[in-house]
Formats: sequence, C-alpha cells, structure tokens
Amino acid sequence: MLILGLDSSAVAASCAVTQDETVLAYATVNTKTTHSQTLLPLMTSILSAANLQLSDIDAFAVSHGPGSFTGLRIGVSAVKGLAFGDSGAHKPVCGVSTLLALAHNLRNLGREVIACAVMDARRGEVYNALFRVNTDSVTRLTPDRAIALTDLGEELIAYDNVLLVGDGAVLAYEHFGGKVAIAGELLRLQNAASVCFSANVNEAITAKELMPTYIRRPQAEREYKKTQETQGV
Amino acid sequence: MLILGLDSSAVAASCAVTQDETVLAYATVNTKTTHSQTLLPLMTSILSAANLQLSDIDAFAVSHGPGSFTGLRIGVSAVKGLAFGDSGAHKPVCGVSTLLALAHNLRNLGREVIACAVMDARRGEVYNALFRVNTDSVTRLTPDRAIALTDLGEELIAYDNVLLVGDGAVLAYEHFGGKVAIAGELLRLQNAASVCFSANVNEAITAKELMPTYIRRPQAEREYKKTQETQGV
Repeated sequence: MLILGLDSSAVAASCAVTQDETVLAYATVNTKTTHSQTLLPLMTSILSAANLQLSDIDAFAVSHGPGSFTGLRIGVSAVKGLAFGDSGAHKPVCGVSTLLALAHNLRNLGREVIACAVMDARRGEVYNALFRVNTDSVTRLTPDRAIALTDLGEELIAYDNVLLVGDGAVLAYEHFGGKVAIAGELLRLQNAASVCFSANVNEAITAKELMPTYIRRPQAEREYKKTQETQGV
Repeated sequence: MLILGLDSSAVAASCAVTQDETVLAYATVNTKTTHSQTLLPLMTSILSAANLQLSDIDAFAVSHGPGSFTGLRIGVSAVKGLAFGDSGAHKPVCGVSTLLALAHNLRNLGREVIACAVMDARRGEVYNALFRVNTDSVTRLTPDRAIALTDLGEELIAYDNVLLVGDGAVLAYEHFGGKVAIAGELLRLQNAASVCFSANVNEAITAKELMPTYIRRPQAEREYKKTQETQGV
C-alpha cells in the first residue's frame, strides 16, 4: 500500500511516500519558509523523484496535531484537498498525532528508549507525550498534553534511557540540564516517513472527517473568552 | 557555511543542504530510478524549498566511495560540474568516505555505539568500516575495505552495541543471525546531510582533484587482468 504523508506541524515541513514498511522517498525542509508555499511543491518533487503520480497513492497520512495552529491547518487542508481529488475517488485519510509520529523516528536504535516528544507550546509549556519505543513497537505511556517543562522534568526522573525528540527538544534539554539525552538532527525533526509508519489505515477516515487536534484552544478563542469573563458575560 | 551534499553511492539517492551543524533541507529517494535522472532534479527541489540558489552554496560534499561504480561516477561528476560552475568561481569540494558518512547517521543516539557501515560489494563481500560513535564524535576503528561477511562477523564478536547501517545492513543482519542490531530505515540509508556533516572543509580540494575511490578495481579491469594472466602476458 502506497501512503503519502505530510507534516507541517512545526517549523520543518516534511513529505514522504512509503510502501508498507519501506520508505520510497522523503524530504524535510527546516527553514522559516511558509508551509503554504513549501509543502505541495515538496510533495510534487518527491513523487516525481520516486517516479510516481498522485493517482498511484492509496491513502494519505498527516500530522493532525498538536503543533502550530497555522501549520496544522495547512497540512490538514492540503490532505483534505488531495484525498478529495479531482477524480472524486475520495481516498482514505489518517490523522496522526504529531507526537506519536516523532516517537516513531526512534524505532530500531538497537535498544529500548523512552521517547519524550516535545514541541514548544509557548507560555512556559510544551506539547508532550511519552512513549516506550522498541525495535518495531511504539507503546504510548501518556496522552498528548500541554504541560509545564518543570512538571515534565519531574515526571522524567522515573525513567531511564530518555531521548528527546521534536522541535522543543533543545528547549527541554537546556531546561533539564543534560540529565536526559537529545536525539541528533536526523531523528529530532518531524519526518513524514514516520507519519506514514504511525498511520493505522484500518482506522482511516474521510477527507471531510479529518480535523486538526489543537490540545489547547487557539489564542484568539482564549482571548475572546478572557474578554467575556472580564466583562462578566 | 552553506554546504550542499550529494550521495548516489548505492540504490538510494540523497541530497542535502546544511548550515554549520544544522540541516536546512534534505531528501532521499530509495527507488530503482537512475541516479543520472534523479539526483540533479532532487537537488533543484531541495534548494528551491530552502529558498536558496546554487550560487549561495559555499562548498560541495559528495560520497566518493566505496559503492556502486556507476553511482559514484554520477555523484562525483555532478559535483565536479557544480563546483566548476558557469561563474568560474571554482568552489571547494570535499570527497567523503561513503562509510564514514553512514556512521555519522548514528551520532546523538544517547549512548555510544559501534557503527558497522556495510554496503553490498557482491561476490560474498561487503564494503565495510567500523567506527566508534558518540554524541558528536565519530572515531574510525578500521580503514574502508572489501571484506568477506564471515570475516566481518568474527571481527564483530569483540564489540558491544554494534549497529548496522548501509544498504548491505539487511544482508549482514541475516548473515549474523541477529547477534547485532540493525538501524531503522531513517538512519540505515545514505543521507546526504551526514555527507555534509562528515566533510572537512579545511581539507577541501578542487573539482579537478575530486575522484571516485573504488576500493576494488572495476569489474572490466579485473577481467582484463585475468585474461592477460591466462594468456601469460
């Protein structure tokens, strides 16, 4: 089964095509270019390099959150359009936790590790989840959540072999003072191949059903609620 | 310093742009498409996605061997052309051991590993070298060599925490019967970002000086020599 995966949940944009457990092609761009300009040309290049057409793809996978609100909307919207398509084929779609996909980066390291997937959620918090990762298995230890770095640090004391991944890994590493290890750049960044690998096609949904999962409410909503509360609404 | 790296030493083709110790963009294609068709369009896509022009690049890095003879010639020739350029700028070039670059994939795994870089050299042999890999350091333990899988297996008994990388890793893993671990797909394949990271720009050469390093002589040469020997030349 050919799966096309996209990730635009953070600064990096990534696209990949996998066939079962094999990566056919992947690309990641880690510059501050806008995902709305980068993501689809990147996909076109990857398909072309792998000698594939969009019509060859059987299913789509996308990181649906947590992450940058705008980034998530771009990725989810792109996959909605691609899965809907001009052929009316309505291909299956998998929305994947960004943090679960990051944990999949750490499969097959020759030993068991605790993946601590961390994304900067601003305001002293990180989006985070913990996973036990072995050769081919990724077991979730916590739900996806927004958590204070201090609280996360205390929780990690219980674990050995912790490896930080994600765009918040450097922030967390500096905060924890080197008591845990940080994955190298090739594993630390979002990789759409891992988005494909963590997609469960048996639980695929339709393009219409796909939605971003923000964990926290958008800033605009939070500020609106705050204004209402101040005004006693 | 912006380095553009290419690897076409095996089935996968890979291209990356790094800035000092940061990956700006990378792409790897692991299909049986011809490198002569894939490599430069892949490079163009990566540069475009990173919002860069070829003229922005300060130096080039390429896996110069060991590997597929045709693949090496394509990569080395491409970099010769790019470094020579139409501007006459003659940019610096680094030829990097394919096996050293593979070992660099395994930096920052949160512990020390012995990288056993393996590429299929046919005729019961592999191109191989061993490296001790830590957070940021890669120390060479053997030269690049063509070695029988049986001999390599005996040599590996002396080491703990061996992790196989390279396109011959699966072959070696099956031969060794699971006594060593094999890296996951994202680390196992050639990655041009690691080619950039393993390039020593202080020892850069010119496009003219860059040559493939085959380790073994090409099949045509071997057969010619054999014919000469048979004929008592």
